Formats: sequence, C-alpha cells, structure tokens
Amino acid sequence: MLIMLRRGSTEQDAQQVIGHLAWGEMAASQVRHRGRRLVCLEHALALELQRWLQENCPQVERVLDIKTPYKLTSVEYQSHASEVVVGQVRIGPGHFCVMAGPCAIESEDQLDRTAAAVKQAGADILRGGAFKPRTSPYSFQGLGLEGLKLLQRVSRHYGLPTVTEVVDCASVEVVAEYTDMLQVGARNMQNFPLLHEVGRAGKPVLLKRGPSATLQEWLLAAEYILAAGNDQVILCERGIKSFDPTTRNCLDLGGVAAVREKTHLPVIVDPSHATGKRSLVSPLALAAAAMGANGILVECHPCPEQALCDGAQSITLPQLLELVKGVQTVVAALEEMHHSTERHFAYSAQERELPSLAR
Amino acid sequence: MLIMLRRGSTEQDAQQVIGHLAWGEMAASQVRHRGRRLVCLEHALALELQRWLQENCPQVERVLDIKTPYKLTSVEYQSHASEVVVGQVRIGPGHFCVMAGPCAIESEDQLDRTAAAVKQAGADILRGGAFKPRTSPYSFQGLGLEGLKLLQRVSRHYGLPTVTEVVDCASVEVVAEYTDMLQVGARNMQNFPLLHEVGRAGKPVLLKRGPSATLQEWLLAAEYILAAGNDQVILCERGIKSFDPTTRNCLDLGGVAAVREKTHLPVIVDPSHATGKRSLVSPLALAAAAMGANGILVECHPCPEQALCDGAQSITLPQLLELVKGVQTVVAALEEMHHSTERHFAYSAQERELPSLAR
Amino acid sequence: MLIMLRRGSTEQDAQQVIGHLAWGEMAASQVRHRGRRLVCLEHALALELQRWLQENCPQVERVLDIKTPYKLTSVEYQSHASEVVVGQVRIGPGHFCVMAGPCAIESEDQLDRTAAAVKQAGADILRGGAFKPRTSPYSFQGLGLEGLKLLQRVSRHYGLPTVTEVVDCASVEVVAEYTDMLQVGARNMQNFPLLHEVGRAGKPVLLKRGPSATLQEWLLAAEYILAAGNDQVILCERGIKSFDPTTRNCLDLGGVAAVREKTHLPVIVDPSHATGKRSLVSPLALAAAAMGANGILVECHPCPEQALCDGAQSITLPQLLELVKGVQTVVAALEEMHHSTERHFAYSAQERELPSLAR
Amino acid sequence: MLIMLRRGSTEQDAQQVIGHLAWGEMAASQVRHRGRRLVCLEHALALELQRWLQENCPQVERVLDIKTPYKLTSVEYQSHASEVVVGQVRIGPGHFCVMAGPCAIESEDQLDRTAAAVKQAGADILRGGAFKPRTSPYSFQGLGLEGLKLLQRVSRHYGLPTVTEVVDCASVEVVAEYTDMLQVGARNMQNFPLLHEVGRAGKPVLLKRGPSATLQEWLLAAEYILAAGNDQVILCERGIKSFDPTTRNCLDLGGVAAVREKTHLPVIVDPSHATGKRSLVSPLALAAAAMGANGILVECHPCPEQALCDGAQSITLPQLLELVKGVQTVVAALEEMHHSTERHFAYSAQERELPSLAR
Repeated sequence: MLIMLRRGSTEQDAQQVIGHLAWGEMAASQVRHRGRRLVCLEHALALELQRWLQENCPQVERVLDIKTPYKLTSVEYQSHASEVVVGQVRIGPGHFCVMAGPCAIESEDQLDRTAAAVKQAGADILRGGAFKPRTSPYSFQGLGLEGLKLLQRVSRHYGLPTVTEVVDCASVEVVAEYTDMLQVGARNMQNFPLLHEVGRAGKPVLLKRGPSATLQEWLLAAEYILAAGNDQVILCERGIKSFDPTTRNCLDLGGVAAVREKTHLPVIVDPSHATGKRSLVSPLALAAAAMGANGILVECHPCPEQALCDGAQSITLPQLLELVKGVQTVVAALEEMHHSTERHFAYSAQERELPSLAR
Repeated sequence: MLIMLRRGSTEQDAQQVIGHLAWGEMAASQVRHRGRRLVCLEHALALELQRWLQENCPQVERVLDIKTPYKLTSVEYQSHASEVVVGQVRIGPGHFCVMAGPCAIESEDQLDRTAAAVKQAGADILRGGAFKPRTSPYSFQGLGLEGLKLLQRVSRHYGLPTVTEVVDCASVEVVAEYTDMLQVGARNMQNFPLLHEVGRAGKPVLLKRGPSATLQEWLLAAEYILAAGNDQVILCERGIKSFDPTTRNCLDLGGVAAVREKTHLPVIVDPSHATGKRSLVSPLALAAAAMGANGILVECHPCPEQALCDGAQSITLPQLLELVKGVQTVVAALEEMHHSTERHFAYSAQERELPSLAR
Repeated sequence: MLIMLRRGSTEQDAQQVIGHLAWGEMAASQVRHRGRRLVCLEHALALELQRWLQENCPQVERVLDIKTPYKLTSVEYQSHASEVVVGQVRIGPGHFCVMAGPCAIESEDQLDRTAAAVKQAGADILRGGAFKPRTSPYSFQGLGLEGLKLLQRVSRHYGLPTVTEVVDCASVEVVAEYTDMLQVGARNMQNFPLLHEVGRAGKPVLLKRGPSATLQEWLLAAEYILAAGNDQVILCERGIKSFDPTTRNCLDLGGVAAVREKTHLPVIVDPSHATGKRSLVSPLALAAAAMGANGILVECHPCPEQALCDGAQSITLPQLLELVKGVQTVVAALEEMHHSTERHFAYSAQERELPSLAR
Repeated sequence: MLIMLRRGSTEQDAQQVIGHLAWGEMAASQVRHRGRRLVCLEHALALELQRWLQENCPQVERVLDIKTPYKLTSVEYQSHASEVVVGQVRIGPGHFCVMAGPCAIESEDQLDRTAAAVKQAGADILRGGAFKPRTSPYSFQGLGLEGLKLLQRVSRHYGLPTVTEVVDCASVEVVAEYTDMLQVGARNMQNFPLLHEVGRAGKPVLLKRGPSATLQEWLLAAEYILAAGNDQVILCERGIKSFDPTTRNCLDLGGVAAVREKTHLPVIVDPSHATGKRSLVSPLALAAAAMGANGILVECHPCPEQALCDGAQSITLPQLLELVKGVQTVVAALEEMHHSTERHFAYSAQERELPSLAR
C-alpha cells in the first residue's frame, strides 16, 4: 500500500498519517520520491481504512493499492518505462545500450587500448573495476583510488561515461566523485546499508542480481535505493547458481522477460559473468538484444590470457567489434519489423498503458 | 576411447577386440553406427595398448582417443554439424526450424484449426501430445491412439510432418507408425530402456533435457540412442529447475550455447515449458533464434483458456504468426550480416573444421 | 476432492457419480483402495454440489474435502501413520529399519559376504541391484535375471527380505517374483507407466525421490501407485541436486521432516547416494535416525575399491556394524526419553490424531 | 602455498620473501596469525622454488604445500579441531553448544522472558538481533543501539554470553562493545570489507553460510577473517536455496559433514532459518546433534505469533526446553557409545591426527 501525499505536504503531514496507521498497529515508513512525500505500508489496508484516510486527511492525494511488496519499482506505481541517464547516454526504451571494458583496471596502457576499442565499436559506456570483491583474500583486489583516477582520465579522453563497482559505504563518495554510475555487485545485492548509501549518492546505480536472488528479492533491493530518494536505477541480470558445472552461472533470460513485466526500471544483461567463458558471450549477447533487454554489460581485454581477473570470460577487442555489430543488427531488424507492423510483442512490456499513477 | 573397425568387419572381429580388452580387465561394448562396427570403452586406453591393437588387429582401422564419456555424440567423433530429416524438413545448419502445436490433442476441430495456423505461419512441423505424462494421476492423460490417428489425418491434410511424445517402450511401435518424430520427454530423459527402444525405432528422436540434468547427463542420454543405432537425434532445452518461483522453469540458453560446442547434434529450444507463461514465450523464442539454436518447439492453441493441459503457457494462433515472423526476421538479419562478413561468431560452432573422424 | 462410495458399491454406482460430475465439465477418475471404490476429482467441488451428491446419490458415503492434489497419500485421508510389511519386517512407527547391501550384485561371493555382515549387524533388509540404470551406456548395467536369482538364494539363506530396483514395465513381473520389495529409482520417479505397473504388482514399493522433485511431485508419484491399488509404499529421500560440487547430492532432511507432516506413508533416507562419499554416510545415517525418519537404505561392499558401481559411496562391512550400532543407540535414547516424558516432539507427526477418515 | 616465517621475523623479512616471489611474477600477501608472520601465495610453488627459498632465506621456517585456496582455515594447516571461547563457553570438541533467543529484540519484557527460558533450558548463549537486515525496506529494521543495550543488560543478569548480527563496518565497534560474539549474516557472507573488519575486532565471529555459497566460498570467507588476524571463527550452516517451496531453505547437513573434513573450525547449525517453520526445528536440531555438529543456533520467542520478525520459525519457550533436553540426550548417548568403543565414526573428523603444522 502506498499513500501519496499532495505536493507541498510537510513532515508533519506525513507523521500524522503514520500516526493514524500506528493506531491500527500498522508500521508505516515515509519515503520521498520525485519531490513528493509518500507513506509506505508493507501490507494491505482495508478498504474502509483507505476511504477513511482520504476523507479525513486532506494531505492525502490518493491511496495506491499496490499489492506487491515492492512499491516504487512496480509497474503499478509507474506504468511507462523509465529512462536512466548516464553522462549523455540514455538507457531505456528506444536505445540498446552497450557497456564494455575490463573486469579490473590494471594499467593505463591496458585501459587506454580497451577504451579506444570500446569507442571504435560504437559502445556507449566504459566499465572497469577499481575495487574488486574477490572470493579469496589472496587474489588481486584492484588498484583502488589509483584505478578510479585512471578510469576518469581515460574515459574523458574518449568521451565515454563510466561505471564501476562500489563495495562499501565508506567508498561511495569517492567512487561517485570519479565515475558516472555506481555498480552494486551481485554479492552485495542485499547489503542494505550500501543500498541505502548509493540511494543518497546522487548518481545512477547499476544493481546486479544476486546469484540466488528471486526476482522479488531483486526488486526489493532496488526498492531500497528508490526509497532512499534515487530513481536512477538499472537492473542487471548476470546469471544465477545452478547445478550444472559447465558454465559459471546460468543466465536467466526468462527472469529478465518476467521482471520487465513487473517493473518500469531498465533491465540489462551481463553475458560475461553469466557464462564465464569467452566463446559463449556473443551468443548470449545476441539473445539479450533479441528478447528486448535494454542493453548489455560485457568484459573485454586487450589480452585476456594475461588479465589479472576473469580473463577466461573476457572477449578480445576484435570480438567486441563483431559483437556490437551483431547486437545492432538484431535490434535494427526487430525495430524495423516493429515499425512496419506498428506493434511488436517483444516490446509490449514498454507499451503497456495502464493508467499511470506517478507522472 | 572408441575403436573403429574397418568396413566389412564381422561380429567375430569385434568380439576379438573386446576379448583382448577383457584380458586387461577393461569392459568394452560393441556399437554399430552408420554401417560400421565400433568398440566403445568407457575409460582411457594406455598409448602402448592403442598401438598394440593397431599393430596386431588388422580389423582395427583407427583408435579415436575421445576423452569425454559420450563418444558418438561428441564433436571429437564428428566435427561437422549433423542434419536431421523429419518428413521433408531438414533440421540443422542453415535452417531455423519452428515446431508448433497444442500441448495435448483434444479434438479434431482443435487440432485442425491449430494445424491451419501452423501452416499459415510458415512453421515446419506440427506437434501434439496423445500420450501425456502428467504429474497427477487425476489429470487428463491424453487421447492415446485416437489422438495419434487424428494427428496423422490432420497433418497429412496440411502437409506437415509431426512430432509426438512416447512414454514407454510398449508404445514406441505404434507412435512410430503414426508420426514422423518421437519425442522423449524431460521426465524420461534417463529412462534408459525407453532410450534404447527409440534408438531402434527407425525414426528421428527429439530428446528433451531433464529438468535437473547436467549437459553431460543429457549428452549421455543421447549416446544411448546413437549407440542403439539411431543418429537422427535432436536435443531440446526446455528449462531447468531453479529457486525462483516466477517462471515454471529457468531456460538455460547458456547451456544451449555450451552444448553446441560439445556435440554435432542439432539443438532446439522450447520456450513454452521453460516459462510456463504465454507472454514470455515470444521474447525467449527470439532469443533462441538470435543465439544460434537450430529451432524452437512452441505450444499454441485456438483457445488457450479452455486447453485441457498447460493452457497458461500456450500462445494464441495470431501470436504464433507474429512469433514466426519475428524469429525469421532475426535469423535473416544475422544471416545477411554473416554473409556480408563471410564469417560470424554465433555460428562458429558449426564452422569448426577439426580433422573429421567419422565421415 | 475425494468421494468415498459405500462398501458394496458397483462399477455402475461409480460411473453414475462420474457422469454427474461430467455434466459440470469436471473430469473425475475412479480408484479402488482397500476394497472400496472412490471417485477422485483433481480440483475442488463447490459446497452446494457436495451436498447435492450426498443427498441424491445413495452410494456416496462421504465427500472428503482434501485440498492437496494428492489424496490417498495425504494425512487428510488417513491421519495415523501407515505400516508397510516386507517379509516379516514392519516399517513404520515404533521400528527404525535398516536396509543394506551392495549397489550392484556382482557375484555370489560378494553378495554372500555382504549378506552375512548385514545379518550380523542386525540390519533388516538386504538390498542389491540386478538391473542398474546407468548414466552412460558403456557402464556396467547389472547381472539382470542372474542377479535376481543370486539375491533370492542368498537372502533365503540368511533369512533377510530383499529390495531391488525395477527399471521398466516389462520386468516388473520377474522382479516381483524374485524379491520382496520393488524399488523405483530416482530417475524413474515420474515414469508414470512404471508407477502404474508397480501399483498392480502386489508387492511393497520403495519410491525414491527424484533429484529435482518437489515434495508435492513426490507425493503425486506415490499417489499413482496408491491409485493403482497398492498402499504398501515407502518414500525414500536420497539427495537433491544443488550447486555445490563437494557432495554428489544434497540430502534434504528438512524435506523429510516436512513430508512427514503431509503423508501417512513411512519415509526413509538413503545417505549413500545423498553424499557419494563413504566418510559422510555414517553422520547422515545418525542424523536420519535422530530426526524421526523410519529407516535408512545404505550401500556396503566387502571391498568398495573393487566395486563395479558406486564404490566411493559404499561403506565397508565393519563400518556397517558400527553404523547400525550408532543408529540403534540414537533411536533407543530418544525412545527412552520419549517414554519418560510420555510425549516427544520429533515423533509428533505419528501421534497426530486428526479425525481419521479412512480406517 | 603458505610460507611460515620463524618467530621474531620482521616486516622486512616478510617483504624480502614477497619480493623474491614477485620476481617470478607471483603475487603474495603477508598475513599474521598467532603471533607469526606468514606469506600466502594463492597458487602452487614449484618444488625447486620451495627448496630455493628454504636454502636462501633464513627467515623461512617451513613451506606448507597447502593445495586448497583457503589456507589458515584448512586441516592441512591445523589438524586438530579448534576451540572458540565466547564468554566462558567453549565451543568445539567435547561440548555441544546451544545458542537461542529471539530473531529480533523487541522489548525488555520479551528479551527477559526469553533469556530466563534460555537459562532454564540449559542453553549456553543468548542470541538476539538489534540490527536486522530485512529483504524489504518497509519491514521492521531492529531497535539498533537500544537493542544492544537491552541485550547487554539482560544477558548480564542471567550470566549468558551473547551473539548478535553486525551489518556494516561502521557498527562493528559498537556491536563489539556490547556483545560477546559478532554474527556475520548469510547475506553478508561475501561482504569482504565487513569480513576484514570483524577480523580486526578482537571478538569471536559467527559466520553464516550464504544461501548459495559453495563450501569453498564459505571457507574462503572465513579465511578473510583469519587472514585479518582473528582465528576465533565459528561456521554456521543455515540452509541453502533450493527449488522446493515447502521449506524456506534446504538444510545441507551433508555439507556440514563435508566441511568438517576440510577445516579445523567449529561448525554449528541453524535449523530455524533452514526451515522457516516451527514444527520442523526440533527434528533438524536433533539431526544436527546426532551427526556431529558442534552446536545449534535456534530462534525462540515468548509469543511467536506476535513476533515482529520471523515468527513462523520461532519455537515457543516450552518447546525450547524440550529441544535442549532432546539434543542433550542424543549427544550423551553417542558419547557414551563412543567411550565404550573407544572410537566413534561421527567424531572421526576431530580425531584425525595428521602431522600438525601450526601448533
């Protein structure tokens, strides 16, 4: 249940509503979203109470009967697809976005050669890890601040916006200073203090799905960020755990299709972590383009065999060029068909025109 | 290890080799494949023994050092992609095959209307279940023989080859009599007597992956069919079990990409069982077309709400038309790009030219 | 929904009820259970229709509103724990049953030495595989009929009832002739023709849980057997697929505890297949004994390193003696505590005294 | 590979060894453990290099050829079972430890009544959550600092040591001030900055297994804590994700048995989160006691229906008394049997006497 207060409502107005609900032993929280105050209630609200609130509280504009546990991220809250802006790149309907770069930033030379290829391929955003969460304490942990500075210098040279991972609350500020989008990694998807912190950092957030997160858990993680005041959130599927040892993870494209029916946020796909194997990255990138994802996140390296991290899943720079050409071909063909028929099923999720509540 | 005997070798020739191996306490089996006798050994054979066999057994043509537990299905055994012929339809490289039809055959009217749409859409093969394996003993179990006869009559009228499931050894013969391809369902993937029986039925076989089968278990199930003398086998991924309750199963397209690097058999995708939800079928069908699968198997129904089985995942007949148009668009665009660049990564698995062993 | 007809009702009586339901487009099936006819309806039946049937059909004794899709296996149908009798061994409340023996019967000497140890250890039932379903067509497939004969001869000598796997409908009769209990293996849990056939074989059935079967799917598989007229069914958990490669499967003891709240059938545990590793068998056997399972099924071998099948998970014969002593110690200690407090939680599932419907 | 330096070695001594390795392009890290410096190398070291180091670096005492990626947590590093001391409670071989208390601390009354029962039952440690990581931002998030103070006050009154969860680096210090053991929750198992921080906090750590963590990932998470200088670590299995919706998670007791063969750290079991259902807690607690775990962590509440968090899985206080009596019965019976036979398999992991490296 979401109670939307009128524009101009005050803290006191919100507290009054929360107070009424507390009378009925219902714990509610206040969130601020797009300049308005909302009161969120985890559970349902009886119809007579909904009516009572609307009749007795002039500050209440409307009561949105959203039944999913996530509220601000739901299509019930906002029926049209959201657009997230990173630098000058728009991610959302009408543009398939390619983010590419090395798993870990290793050196200026490595990053520069990669960025040149990313630019040449026509990709949109440069990725690169400076703080690396590694399974073993004895693995390379990233260049840290030095890496961030390299990333900023190189990306400016090529005019590419950047995305990099942030691994704890303490470094949110510095990462936000040097880069254009903050990535919350799969293993931190339910690191709630971190979600809250990136929700207040004033930068777009790329939220990876945890390796065993249900779609609902994923959307609730995004809800933490939105509830903290930041609605520039992109979801990224990167494979879930399965019983088969052949691929590193199991890419859940059915989950991507399903989550797009539940949320207005853009959803992209990371075929590199999903498979862990170079030769499988391109087929899955093409699949993501065809099934209506909003973009992909791909690892590439000038010399994957020498990469300090995840070399086996990094594609080469020539492969990146081919891959981008491939996904553009698929997207263009489907778009043309879509235009010629005036309507296309794969994009139907974006076209839904439920009565929009939150414009 | 696979020991290929010269053409014209006799039963006695094979038994002699098996006898030599038994001396070394190695249990070997004889298989016949494409008119030749082979001796299969599960484990490796020491190099000196390989040499000894070649020097002392004139009937041995060559010893193939195949390290995977599956032999005849492996790319080490045959490096070029196989083609399976169902009726006049060729499934394999160069043609994306669409198989469509109802989950269960319910009536002549239902099947006739569906087949007309399948034909009109430009799909290749008509599917329809007559013997239905159902989780509950109280669910509709299919029309049985009556269903097979309907399927044959309707398919002949529209000139469409057919595929239907066979659930036990006893009905292999009758199913083979009335249809063009035998489907082994996911729950029977490791029903080894059934695999052996369809291996001797003289009809192409569609082998679905079990809901928790590893790629290796899947290929070994196919090996049972090939070892029984039938190499007209198509693999079909239909989703694996996962922890997320949103979709019925989790479609493992990464597994499809990976298995294509391991086997020469065609691999198709069933997006209907993978998702269990009508609106998710088209996105995943497009994904399958883009990532290089050899085809799809889709459930459709003139009136899904009234279907006796799996209505929620059946698309409508108009949706089938759109879907086929979509996959054809994707395949054509990628093929054109492929031709213009003379080489395309998604199809690289088909192009590998390892020294072929089994022509 | 389950409609129980009065004793002495005829085929015609049942068909009349089914006919009434068909009028309302509800497909019902007749089953016979413990000498009575029942009409099973997969879905719910409106209250007024329930009443109508009871008022207008004198052959209807009562309508049982069982909401789970499984009916005869449910605790709603029968609230007290069932007992299954194999030879003279009673499996169910009040006795913890140990079944032990080799994975595959290999020779008279191997089976004789094993059976002697099984007897000496105080175990109840001798297991041994004659028809082995193997992942690879090139692995040892069992001694077949010869194995069955060996099993019968040796078991009679030691006075031990036997259990062995049956892999297809065609061999149900011969397996039933030579052994005391038919095992349906994990990979055949949803081989519905086989379930139906063992349901008519007149011997107790040991039904293993499939490696990715939900509890509901497992109970519905048992329902097939009961609906075919056989209520001598024991469920056996043997580990489910998981993402962790360390153990062969993941033993789901929580599932065992949960399923005991849903069914009156005995439930036992197979720690050998669950782990695939000898050293882990005893800890899990003790766990099964402590948590209230009705028994265990364990693989042992006189010389596991030379076993033709699953040697790594077979315990030695001295280990079997220790294991049986351990589980007996645990069971005895809990029983004594239980008696002294007159009531013990772990066994509460057996003590539930819901108003029993089916005595 | 682990290179142990002699006692009294200096920073310079360690850096010299790291420098030698860097020459060979091998990245090594220094860790300090139990007053000594060690140099850790993720990968293997060629035999001649091992010898070269021992001959040319007098500060090198020995080179331990540990092949697992975790080093300090492995049984290769320390063959005898570790003991962790929380307050006056010793967790490790020879004592089965019960930790119990509410999921979330809600009020003084609730905590006091619970603690009284925990004490009366003979349990060892009081648990209670003050900072609650919740899937939804709109759920109750815990009392925070106020909760910690309540926990300290109540626990001192009853003379019970305490354990509580810490959710971010910023609160490690305050949690360490008020409680006796820091819990790292399942969702933070790979929150590496947090692991590092609790490794420096000077308090014992309870490390829960992530819901989809392999045993190796779990041990590497523990390795982060040990490498930061803290070897007072207890592992806690709390169920992993599975496909079955009946239980909240799937308790992996086979994983517990397997991990005990790999590490010297104590391992306990949380049957509450594993099942999510009150009636299943006791059976699994008994199972944990029987299979050789070092203890259990259980949620209980004076009035579970009114609990603000996880009420469905909290047992009542009378149930706690019964449960503790049950596990004590099982442990005592097995111990007696063990003593009488002078050797018992379930405890064999503790008895291994490999040549100990790290005393």
